[in-house]
Amino acid sequence: MQTRIAIIGYGNIGKAVEQAVLAAEDMQLVGIYHHNDNLDNIEADVVALCTPTREVPLFAEKLLSRGIATVDSFDIHGQIYDLRSHLTPIAKEHQAVSIIAAGWDPGSDSMVRALLQAIAPKGITYTNFGPGRSMGHTVAAKAIPGIKDALSMTIPLGTGIHRRMVYVELEEGADFATVEKLLLADDYFAHDETHVIPVPSIDALNNVAHGVHLVRDGVSGETHNQRFEFNMSINNPALTGQVLVACARAAVKMRAEQRHGAFTMIEIPPIYLLPGDEEQLIRSLV
Amino acid sequence: MQTRIAIIGYGNIGKAVEQAVLAAEDMQLVGIYHHNDNLDNIEADVVALCTPTREVPLFAEKLLSRGIATVDSFDIHGQIYDLRSHLTPIAKEHQAVSIIAAGWDPGSDSMVRALLQAIAPKGITYTNFGPGRSMGHTVAAKAIPGIKDALSMTIPLGTGIHRRMVYVELEEGADFATVEKLLLADDYFAHDETHVIPVPSIDALNNVAHGVHLVRDGVSGETHNQRFEFNMSINNPALTGQVLVACARAAVKMRAEQRHGAFTMIEIPPIYLLPGDEEQLIRSLV
Repeated sequence: MQTRIAIIGYGNIGKAVEQAVLAAEDMQLVGIYHHNDNLDNIEADVVALCTPTREVPLFAEKLLSRGIATVDSFDIHGQIYDLRSHLTPIAKEHQAVSIIAAGWDPGSDSMVRALLQAIAPKGITYTNFGPGRSMGHTVAAKAIPGIKDALSMTIPLGTGIHRRMVYVELEEGADFATVEKLLLADDYFAHDETHVIPVPSIDALNNVAHGVHLVRDGVSGETHNQRFEFNMSINNPALTGQVLVACARAAVKMRAEQRHGAFTMIEIPPIYLLPGDEEQLIRSLV
Repeated sequence: MQTRIAIIGYGNIGKAVEQAVLAAEDMQLVGIYHHNDNLDNIEADVVALCTPTREVPLFAEKLLSRGIATVDSFDIHGQIYDLRSHLTPIAKEHQAVSIIAAGWDPGSDSMVRALLQAIAPKGITYTNFGPGRSMGHTVAAKAIPGIKDALSMTIPLGTGIHRRMVYVELEEGADFATVEKLLLADDYFAHDETHVIPVPSIDALNNVAHGVHLVRDGVSGETHNQRFEFNMSINNPALTGQVLVACARAAVKMRAEQRHGAFTMIEIPPIYLLPGDEEQLIRSLV
């Protein structure tokens, strides 16, 4: 029996979710909706919210209130727990499940961080991002007056320190020195080493590759020098879309077990993310 | 309120569990038992079984039948699902929880393998072990007539292929060529590139360092070339002991939620492995 999944939002992430759903034998795509469509007639077990992150809470509320599970890749780290607190009572009241902040960071990286902290409890974890495009920084750069288009690349310098390489396409008549000064003073960029580079076309630079280099040096019991490293080199929307589909599967399983509420990925057993028979999964993966 | 934990078996792993318990603020060590002690008087929330792997099923059965949770690092990959099937009804009947195969492989590596298969469903995962001592191969080597003591090192050659470097201390009067021939014909060694090296003292070589290099190259949705890598360089018993303590914590949480039965680590939400407040963990790790 397939899980009926719908998608709201059809940008990079929505398209990647569509591809991941079509590649999954246990999933049936029942609809793709633009985020200003009327959603009253959605009939699905679970909906993947691929809207801008700030629109996630409202869509999640509406769908959970109708007993429909949701998954999203809400990515404002400081507000994830608050979103969970907000959605939990709504999901519980309507016997629904919401998996929030389901992408790769927050998301699969969070699971790795939790695991490494558990197995080497004292120590420091550094998550180094990139090289790859930062969506948040790119949006912040585009909002600067005089910038027509922008691309902010995150370059890892180690120990969680990053360089920002900001490529900007100027508006007709804009002065680069003025634009550069405004950008460097913006709170998104003021705290990191930032380089602003004028280019004739942002479109010519675009690339959805990204990466992570996550390291932990810790202590297990009394034993120091336990070293761990998790690296990824990935297509960003494709990975996010696939994680959302894996979490949609987990949401349906959790609802079947009457575990209602809103959850982050560190609250999900990894086996719930996978299709197929429990025995076969345990025999092949454990 | 602390979790009362007891340890059965006081070899490398039992000692490492003791250290991890003493370093954990949420745990209280209530006893250490040798595996031939009378266990009828154990009073604990959870018991870490640090006995030889083949003795695990019997101890788990006895303790679960008394409603006491157990954790073990049972490591015979092909028999883990069978052990789970055997212990599940016993645990359910007595409202207990057993976390089995809880170490680093099987164990934390299994969680990483499950996660990577979920986020890049098509592809191949290779788990490369070492350099480090293989317990199983070392025991097999010691069983060969003419060998007084042995150490079998696992050397990773990539794509899950390993070389065995077997250091042997011969018994008085044993013939090296005969011993080597017997060892190379043993089923533990016959399928891998194996080198047998006579040494005057095994004790002088001993070292509990180990490592893992786990790689997956996979497909998310329709996007190929998604690359992931998990590396560890660790003290083997210290990590195993710490994982057992993290799983003891998870067992107690699962019992509090009435989720009785026997589980492998891929069936545990990573947050259950960690001490401390849920909100603080989600805010700091997600």
